[in-house]
Amino acid sequence: MTDLLIQNCNVLQIAADASAASLLNNHDILVRGQRIEAIQPTGQAHPSHFRRMIDASGLLAMPGLINCHAHVPMVIFRGLAEDVSVDRWFNEYMWPLESNLQPDDVYWGMQLGLAEMIESGVTTVNDHYFHMHLAAQAVEKAGTRALLGWCVFSSNGVEMIEKTGEFIQEYQNAANGRIRTIMAPHAPYTCDDDYLMACAKKAEELGVGIHIHASERLSQTESSLQKFGITPIQVLEKTGILDRHTIIAHGCGLLPEDIERLSKRDAGVTCSPKTYMKLTSGMTPVIELRAAGVPVGLATDGAVSNNTLDIFESLRLMTMMQKVNHDSSEVMPIAEALYIATRGSAAVLNREDELGALEPNYLADIILVDLSGTHHQPLYNPPGSLVYNTRASDVRTVIVDGQVIMEDRKLYTLNKDEIVGELRTRMERLSDRHPDRRIQVYNP
Amino acid sequence: MTDLLIQNCNVLQIAADASAASLLNNHDILVRGQRIEAIQPTGQAHPSHFRRMIDASGLLAMPGLINCHAHVPMVIFRGLAEDVSVDRWFNEYMWPLESNLQPDDVYWGMQLGLAEMIESGVTTVNDHYFHMHLAAQAVEKAGTRALLGWCVFSSNGVEMIEKTGEFIQEYQNAANGRIRTIMAPHAPYTCDDDYLMACAKKAEELGVGIHIHASERLSQTESSLQKFGITPIQVLEKTGILDRHTIIAHGCGLLPEDIERLSKRDAGVTCSPKTYMKLTSGMTPVIELRAAGVPVGLATDGAVSNNTLDIFESLRLMTMMQKVNHDSSEVMPIAEALYIATRGSAAVLNREDELGALEPNYLADIILVDLSGTHHQPLYNPPGSLVYNTRASDVRTVIVDGQVIMEDRKLYTLNKDEIVGELRTRMERLSDRHPDRRIQVYNP
Repeated sequence: MTDLLIQNCNVLQIAADASAASLLNNHDILVRGQRIEAIQPTGQAHPSHFRRMIDASGLLAMPGLINCHAHVPMVIFRGLAEDVSVDRWFNEYMWPLESNLQPDDVYWGMQLGLAEMIESGVTTVNDHYFHMHLAAQAVEKAGTRALLGWCVFSSNGVEMIEKTGEFIQEYQNAANGRIRTIMAPHAPYTCDDDYLMACAKKAEELGVGIHIHASERLSQTESSLQKFGITPIQVLEKTGILDRHTIIAHGCGLLPEDIERLSKRDAGVTCSPKTYMKLTSGMTPVIELRAAGVPVGLATDGAVSNNTLDIFESLRLMTMMQKVNHDSSEVMPIAEALYIATRGSAAVLNREDELGALEPNYLADIILVDLSGTHHQPLYNPPGSLVYNTRASDVRTVIVDGQVIMEDRKLYTLNKDEIVGELRTRMERLSDRHPDRRIQVYNP
Repeated sequence: MTDLLIQNCNVLQIAADASAASLLNNHDILVRGQRIEAIQPTGQAHPSHFRRMIDASGLLAMPGLINCHAHVPMVIFRGLAEDVSVDRWFNEYMWPLESNLQPDDVYWGMQLGLAEMIESGVTTVNDHYFHMHLAAQAVEKAGTRALLGWCVFSSNGVEMIEKTGEFIQEYQNAANGRIRTIMAPHAPYTCDDDYLMACAKKAEELGVGIHIHASERLSQTESSLQKFGITPIQVLEKTGILDRHTIIAHGCGLLPEDIERLSKRDAGVTCSPKTYMKLTSGMTPVIELRAAGVPVGLATDGAVSNNTLDIFESLRLMTMMQKVNHDSSEVMPIAEALYIATRGSAAVLNREDELGALEPNYLADIILVDLSGTHHQPLYNPPGSLVYNTRASDVRTVIVDGQVIMEDRKLYTLNKDEIVGELRTRMERLSDRHPDRRIQVYNP
């Protein structure tokens, strides 16, 4: 008995060298347990051999999307810091607001953000925030996949690294293996060298990777060069961070030498273009990183800068901004853009052998997308429509780890009304902002 | 008896100086005939005095969006020219494809694009294409508002200007006044000076404005300077085009002197940022134009470059690209962005006295937007959510000229299945591309 038959869909296939995106039309996807067992032309499977069937006629099946860098619970502050410079964003808005954070705000905020992501086809998130045991409980409930890191600053003291280490061990492979954990020092500008070294040592001891912000914008690189004579990436190298599998958020201020350095390490870089456009951070040099062999994945960052947690939007903006910045319509073609959204993002998480593609033995993280809307028609070019036309609302059904968690846009694991109702009672407290009462100072 | 009561919505108000965006919460909108009669706190109106009521509790009411420059029927070629330079886009793709165009393709393509726009809250379009009597018939059927111009090239000969003049007269104020017409020479690089002069003369004779592409990218301006010693805007000035109310599409190649010139004329400029990002055209200098007092409106251009006809997407991209290009998060704040999407776009069409705001005596072109989705919650900042979070799919109900044409996402005037089915039968013929068989050559 096989567990699930997804019948008669058009299955997106992305070439492993990023050169082609195509469809297997009218195919079935067979799921056994957590994994894809087979993909075969419709008509060969006997419905009676399956515990459950989904009629996916006319829908496009693609790998569940991966959000490679987020602070999901920050949705609780969504819309509270608009049209301000990055300095004011941190010092007058975000870090004062976060002084209002109570642990179970994270539980409810994480649920809201996970609901938003499920509705937009995101099945895995690499999240970097506080009180992550509560984020983990929300992920367990939501049925999604996550890599979770508890954000630490030097100012938290080394005892916080120990506490983070306990979280890493307790939640590693939790939720039936859907949760993995990672070390998450905030950034070279909020963690001094000793602290970074202690984080790297702890990550080595626990056998985990490191998720960190670095070279977020060119001014940070310049400031690091001025203060220390080396770039933020060199700081990561010097402190042993890059000896682990490292996920670097943003990298808009990477120098060519930094890209060269990263290419020799086990590191990937995440790109959240909407945040960069709003905060005028520059842009992750996606094409240059890929040319050097460094994996790049898509991300949203937190909703206070990015407003939404919509990876289809990140995909579209990343693609278009690479064209803009290279002054060429021909760069970042559709197949490469879709590669980054799927296999590329999986590689950033070091999971390219089991996430980011619909193939036998890959984990059954599958989304069904409806391209029948007026904004896709007439449908000459389905891969192009995924990059340039698809809205989050086109995602119909979401399967993670072989389990259906949204069907025909109905959420099965999370209760939106309960979550929104609960958060509504917290809005006044959460938005009570006092710029002199902040958790950190931004002065990179 | 008043015709329509839109009950208990939150009504978006945009200051006439673009300095503020706010909501009148829990208000009713009273509609009599084609116009808004009053906006008043909920509770004062007696339902029995209205022919029809819409319960808009919890929904945001805003002016119907205006698409200030499009080639709507081009949706029939959507997705057929991706990842190519602008030269190849014209010469190898678009203009060869348009040699396949038959008149009634325009009728069906226009219906599809209008359906897409109604579903995304666009109630008025300024359209520039061929066989526009058939586009007008689609607008009449759809119940939307349009300004229609029949595109002409020098190569069509002066007799085509006469034909266009007949169209302008026949359809001026058609569809109960919802249709207006305009002269539509293609561009200075496809219309020579004599032809432009003849168009300007015809526009003057008929008392209409002119809708034209100009200074689409800096290379066109440079080429014009090299060939003629003057910019494309100077060509428009010299040929009398700018003596009429002029709507200039794109203007990404405007020089500061051109902006100065336009500020002394009755001219507006349209911005379709997604097309520019894909075709690396640069960007309309929105901030500089507005500083000079030139109205700017949002647009999508055609779906072969822009993929969608989604003005919420244009709004978001225009806003973010102004921040990027000015390297400042503080420019183009939310209120100004919403001003451009509403009153600004109306001003480009010379209709700011009756479109682009919800006020008594304005035309009743109203959309109801649902901000209850997870991607808006918790909702601290509704105007910000309109700019940065809203998806076309959040538009619930659309009213044009006092008539409800979409309610709770159900289209009342157009039959999507019929339109898509009809176009499906045409896809093979329409996509049969022979680069040597083209309607024009792009060599500006």
